[in-house]
Amino acid sequence: MIRIELSSAHGDYAVLIGQDLLARLDEILRSEGLDHPRGIVTDATVGPLHGGRVGDALALGVVELPAGEPHKSWTSVSAICRRWLADRFDRGASVLAIGGGVVTDTVGFAAAVFLRGIAWVAAPTTLLGMVDAAIGGKTGVNLPEGKNLVGAFWPPRLVVADTATLATLPDRELRSGLAEVVKAAWIGDRGLLELLPSDRPPTYRSMSPEGWQQLVARSVSVKSGIVAADEREGGRRKALNLGHTLGHALEAATSYRRYLHGEAVAWGIEAEAVLARARGLLTPSGETTLRGALDRLGSRPGIADLDAEAVCRFIAVDKKRDAARVGWVLPTDDGVALDQRVETAEAVAAFRALQSAGDRRA
Amino acid sequence: MIRIELSSAHGDYAVLIGQDLLARLDEILRSEGLDHPRGIVTDATVGPLHGGRVGDALALGVVELPAGEPHKSWTSVSAICRRWLADRFDRGASVLAIGGGVVTDTVGFAAAVFLRGIAWVAAPTTLLGMVDAAIGGKTGVNLPEGKNLVGAFWPPRLVVADTATLATLPDRELRSGLAEVVKAAWIGDRGLLELLPSDRPPTYRSMSPEGWQQLVARSVSVKSGIVAADEREGGRRKALNLGHTLGHALEAATSYRRYLHGEAVAWGIEAEAVLARARGLLTPSGETTLRGALDRLGSRPGIADLDAEAVCRFIAVDKKRDAARVGWVLPTDDGVALDQRVETAEAVAAFRALQSAGDRRA
Repeated sequence: MIRIELSSAHGDYAVLIGQDLLARLDEILRSEGLDHPRGIVTDATVGPLHGGRVGDALALGVVELPAGEPHKSWTSVSAICRRWLADRFDRGASVLAIGGGVVTDTVGFAAAVFLRGIAWVAAPTTLLGMVDAAIGGKTGVNLPEGKNLVGAFWPPRLVVADTATLATLPDRELRSGLAEVVKAAWIGDRGLLELLPSDRPPTYRSMSPEGWQQLVARSVSVKSGIVAADEREGGRRKALNLGHTLGHALEAATSYRRYLHGEAVAWGIEAEAVLARARGLLTPSGETTLRGALDRLGSRPGIADLDAEAVCRFIAVDKKRDAARVGWVLPTDDGVALDQRVETAEAVAAFRALQSAGDRRA
Repeated sequence: MIRIELSSAHGDYAVLIGQDLLARLDEILRSEGLDHPRGIVTDATVGPLHGGRVGDALALGVVELPAGEPHKSWTSVSAICRRWLADRFDRGASVLAIGGGVVTDTVGFAAAVFLRGIAWVAAPTTLLGMVDAAIGGKTGVNLPEGKNLVGAFWPPRLVVADTATLATLPDRELRSGLAEVVKAAWIGDRGLLELLPSDRPPTYRSMSPEGWQQLVARSVSVKSGIVAADEREGGRRKALNLGHTLGHALEAATSYRRYLHGEAVAWGIEAEAVLARARGLLTPSGETTLRGALDRLGSRPGIADLDAEAVCRFIAVDKKRDAARVGWVLPTDDGVALDQRVETAEAVAAFRALQSAGDRRA
């Protein structure tokens, strides 16, 4: 088991990464000095795979949300809070969220606002959740206008990343998570790229439990180092938005139906690499390394049929900034350049260039 | 103008109390070093009285919520956030809430969760808002199960209490606010009782602007001193719940339709005085002083027809505690006793005793 300590304005907490941790969660919570949780929230996909088993072991009822991004909503938060009221949870209660980013973001936000804040433990069961969503204290839900538009900074008391759950993920989910690993590698730990699956096309089943643990732990270390320095995204935390300016716009422009989050981020990184090349921030060899790493993850849904201007119209609202004030993160040979101003026409042109080149991977 | 500094884990802020402050809000915000707000939220009652005028002076659009406690809801928060998105507010935006406690609690919660938190300024226009709701950083909305069951600690950057707005309040609203003044007086500044209207029945119009300012400022000082010592209600802040354990239950049992908040709190204080007397925590002379102060506020809707047991069933859920773990705050001769355990039967008996005695004021 690997243990990484995170610091936060709301208190420090640990991320535990290891094989079969959910099977000994009761013992882990006790050894971490945490109260036995009062309830478990998961979703309809993860419940049958892991939630029910953990609920039995901890002798707790399990609330199952419907699965999927549309349920990362206030409707879910309200339903969770009302269930907790029915179960007589008070301010001293703690709860356990088991699932992917949708579950940990939604349950974390419910924990943030229920009785103005109760304790929670995150047990991410997707690669994306382990390396990104459950790390850093951001919780929240979507509004019809875009993702994560309401939320809170409310870190869990503990993150338990059981790498055994990765074996239950479809390949596409693994690829999606690996895009965030490539992002972390590019920002802060280039050696992480060596840990990616090396066969082609990638067969993720060939990764060993130790390989996954290393991959998760080093990605978490990159993110936690950045978040510790900048919890509320004033400065350095922006680096984590690599691939996300255009990635979020791609997700929104396709109504969150075509891409998994990491797939859209992978396209976003590629488009941002085109922009960075055009500006001389990235050399041809840097671009080859970065796009090569993304290529190694395998195929993803294409972009050839999209209207580049329509996609780029989604940039402003989603980045939570005035249109003219969006600060892009562009990849450089040895990291990222923050706060880059990109004209819409420039973004459209880069996206079109990627569309012409990108079909080979679609 | 009286200035009171409040400290908070989220940053310190000031409460300004004075006559006609809203008329010079632009200058005040500038001299406090705050950004010009991007928007104003008020309600349908306060908008025509004050909101429109301030909006004109600051050259800002004004969003009017429907008035009343039923609109202290996520529906309102979501509508506010979506309007802010449509108006392209970003994380750097700040907003102004003008109104009573429903408005400041709701808008403060919207500010807490919009893009995970933006700055806000509270301009309470009711006595209750000035002395209680807008002070201390608690924001939130109601669920069908009870009041303030979801929310956040998210203090405003500034509170501007314009005592001129009190002249537009119905007497009943003034009485409701004065109950919280009596509470503050009992907890921490007994001399405040001397500032209450002294004529009978009270004609609040006889109070001078300076009288109101003193009354508000000294009440704010009591609350701010307690909140500074205990922002998240672990200990001393509980003192502020005097009158609220039974007061909230009364409001819930009558579906929030019969009593204004302060009226229910006044009954709550009286019931808690009966309990305190029975336990020997309060002498007959202390009880006479406390109930005498409440009597001086004038009449309020009665309690004679209520089912005491039905009322007391609402105690547990509303106090955000397991039924058996509700810690009552009971008045003593020189303050309050915290964390008192009261059996339901004891509460019912005290409430019944009050019902027999209380009709004279109904």
